[in-house]
Amino acid sequence: VVVVGGGLVGALNTCFLAKRGFIVDLYEKRSDIRKAEHVKGRSINLALSTRGRTALRMVGLEDTVLENGIRMHARMIHDPDGSRRPILYGKEDQYIMSVDRRRLNEVLLTAAEKNPNVTCHFEHKLVSCDFKTGEAEFINNEGKRIKKTVDLIVGNDGAFSGVRKEMMKATLLDYQQQYIPHGYMELTIPPSPKDEYLMETNYLHIWPRNEFMMIALPNLDKSFTCTLFMPFEIFNSIKTEEDLMNFFRDKFPDSIPLMGEETLKQIFMSSKALPMVSIKCSPYHVEDKGLIMGDAAHAMVPFYGQGMNAGFEDCIALDEMLDLYKNDFSKALPAYSETRTVDAHAICDLAMYNYVEMRKSVNSKLFLMRKKLDNLLFTIFPNSWIPLYTMVAFTRTRYHLCIARRKHQDEILTKVLSGGMMVLLGVCALSGLRICNQRGITFQTLTDKAMELWESFPPVNR
Amino acid sequence: VVVVGGGLVGALNTCFLAKRGFIVDLYEKRSDIRKAEHVKGRSINLALSTRGRTALRMVGLEDTVLENGIRMHARMIHDPDGSRRPILYGKEDQYIMSVDRRRLNEVLLTAAEKNPNVTCHFEHKLVSCDFKTGEAEFINNEGKRIKKTVDLIVGNDGAFSGVRKEMMKATLLDYQQQYIPHGYMELTIPPSPKDEYLMETNYLHIWPRNEFMMIALPNLDKSFTCTLFMPFEIFNSIKTEEDLMNFFRDKFPDSIPLMGEETLKQIFMSSKALPMVSIKCSPYHVEDKGLIMGDAAHAMVPFYGQGMNAGFEDCIALDEMLDLYKNDFSKALPAYSETRTVDAHAICDLAMYNYVEMRKSVNSKLFLMRKKLDNLLFTIFPNSWIPLYTMVAFTRTRYHLCIARRKHQDEILTKVLSGGMMVLLGVCALSGLRICNQRGITFQTLTDKAMELWESFPPVNR
Repeated sequence: VVVVGGGLVGALNTCFLAKRGFIVDLYEKRSDIRKAEHVKGRSINLALSTRGRTALRMVGLEDTVLENGIRMHARMIHDPDGSRRPILYGKEDQYIMSVDRRRLNEVLLTAAEKNPNVTCHFEHKLVSCDFKTGEAEFINNEGKRIKKTVDLIVGNDGAFSGVRKEMMKATLLDYQQQYIPHGYMELTIPPSPKDEYLMETNYLHIWPRNEFMMIALPNLDKSFTCTLFMPFEIFNSIKTEEDLMNFFRDKFPDSIPLMGEETLKQIFMSSKALPMVSIKCSPYHVEDKGLIMGDAAHAMVPFYGQGMNAGFEDCIALDEMLDLYKNDFSKALPAYSETRTVDAHAICDLAMYNYVEMRKSVNSKLFLMRKKLDNLLFTIFPNSWIPLYTMVAFTRTRYHLCIARRKHQDEILTKVLSGGMMVLLGVCALSGLRICNQRGITFQTLTDKAMELWESFPPVNR
Repeated sequence: VVVVGGGLVGALNTCFLAKRGFIVDLYEKRSDIRKAEHVKGRSINLALSTRGRTALRMVGLEDTVLENGIRMHARMIHDPDGSRRPILYGKEDQYIMSVDRRRLNEVLLTAAEKNPNVTCHFEHKLVSCDFKTGEAEFINNEGKRIKKTVDLIVGNDGAFSGVRKEMMKATLLDYQQQYIPHGYMELTIPPSPKDEYLMETNYLHIWPRNEFMMIALPNLDKSFTCTLFMPFEIFNSIKTEEDLMNFFRDKFPDSIPLMGEETLKQIFMSSKALPMVSIKCSPYHVEDKGLIMGDAAHAMVPFYGQGMNAGFEDCIALDEMLDLYKNDFSKALPAYSETRTVDAHAICDLAMYNYVEMRKSVNSKLFLMRKKLDNLLFTIFPNSWIPLYTMVAFTRTRYHLCIARRKHQDEILTKVLSGGMMVLLGVCALSGLRICNQRGITFQTLTDKAMELWESFPPVNR
């Protein structure tokens, strides 16, 4: 098998495939991340939840990764007046983990290479694939072209996947990419002079401000990595250091002393806001020779914290299909495609939905009431009433079933509420009639009055 | 200006741009269609309606094209039992035109080349564009690379547009492509031995069969070109000549003697069903240097007969924006993008909607009743009640307004119908009460009976 891409999903998938006994050649266009000084682009830390953890457990890496992560039990909301309030993610013992992308990637690559079935080739860029013959061609950093013919070419090569581009030439692929008007920029809150965390550690900090938002995740070195999400036009409207400080003083005043005014200025003015894209496609396979997974198949906006988790769960899904069809790619690949597309489309939709929800709703009282009601019902009916976030982050319920189940729960809630409303109306009507009765107004009088009123309208307005 | 693509829209657009005074270089990757013996792929004839005609009129070509077209006043429905019935497209004097794709392309290229501002380069394939500098690179059939730097690069290069691919590298382009499960195959009904049309000439013939459909458009040489639309899986299930004849005898019996059994077998067995794709994207421009139009910007499924018409109307839309902004590309291109995307998305949606409608509904009585009611209301209120098809095919009402207006009309219809229903119910209730009254049953008795009935239900069913 050829795996194209040595990022998080590519490296993990290599572990899974090698463990099944396949001979795997992994090709990565960048140099070995374990030897690099700086790594450009992409977020620095990520939120690992149940789906991702389960996949890591299956290749024996969960504990190693958890040791290098930081638990986050709740969101910590930073209000514009500087006050803070936590909102639990689920029950007290449920948490997501802040993990370092680079460290995780290194752990996965090292684990993959430990298996004698695996060979990693860095600085090899995909040139083309032929899904009839299974031949993939790469060009290395010396300009040399390398061809490799295999039984399966797997594209784990991210949102701008080269394998996907080759698939689009070879098969009728439905494809959709959508950029959102927001960009993101990473800022930092350094450790205190005493080398301590400057904010509560075990939280995902959020500054929700409707049109924009900032979040911060803790790092092992006692710093926080902040990500600022804003429409590109607002990023572009901040042209000078003065603009920047005015903006921060107005919107995120409590973050300025934490970041340090000079550091904030230096990072912001020298950085560029990056775009976010949502990608859906179908199918994920070509013949019995090509497959795309992870961001190559379903890039999503980052607002549900499920991008990596969904990609890791892809590896489990493929593993299960290979079990079911005894490593027969001609059956396993179509089956994977068919089952996984619905789930990937569902989590892409949820992430896009949260793009609006997260900025606006964590600020609204209705949202908080709903969260509380949701959690209350969860406590009363722990097996039948599960909040959507809990299903997505803390279970492996298929994503599309999370949405279906949520809809069902919402319908029940609507029915209960509208039932309550009917009872209320009934009580009002009865009270009204009773008052009429006490005052000697009969039902007959009421209907006569109504008829009189009706007759009094000019005919055209009836 | 560089125009990439010398198909229908590219050639017409060149006429428009040259007429405005721009020096235009048109690059087409295929050889000159006027010198080719056979032209592969794409449909043979097309339905030209008002939008396309208006654009042709603006460059002085309407009459030439109409002389070479055949009027179609109505659909001619072929029922499975062989009976035929016409359904008018609009009023008696409204018609669409069947035109020959190749001949139209030839007329447009010749007209373009007549303008001294225009140079056509055939067998030149696009290699790359730079939308910062305005440089476009081509490779000709001898392998020579040609560079051209201009003020504007226009992609009129079809659904698989090379210019669009270059734009996707240069800007954040939202993009969607969707293949439908149906493929199409062209068949033919030749002229009679006496060189006459074998079916009524001035109609678009339709054999609606729910899951699949055949249509036929008349050609000037007295033949008809038929297009068979079916799910690929049905195409693939027809493996032998026997399968084919069984299928045609069952579904399109009246077409067999017209096509001729041997010709049908020969064409079908040697042809391959082709896919259909719907493409939407946004925006249509990059900076002040790049623009895509026609199928490159909005390929659609062919079921509204508007693909070419929409592409031709694009040329008018650009011309209007260039008028408005005095040829300033930095203003005209964003304005074109913004206004034209909503209309192009609307017609793509309508075409997809008709993909279902055309196969199913022309067969249903409800559809026919609605068409009749629609046309009746159109006759009574010719200025305010315009059927959707009429707006799309016989006016230049912006596509998105056609949909909006249709929705508004549907709402009125619903209100009128539900109003009528209320009156009907009221009349029934009054008649009922009158009968009760005549039989000596009082209102009090009726309500008592109702209460009795209510009480008789077991509590759980209430």
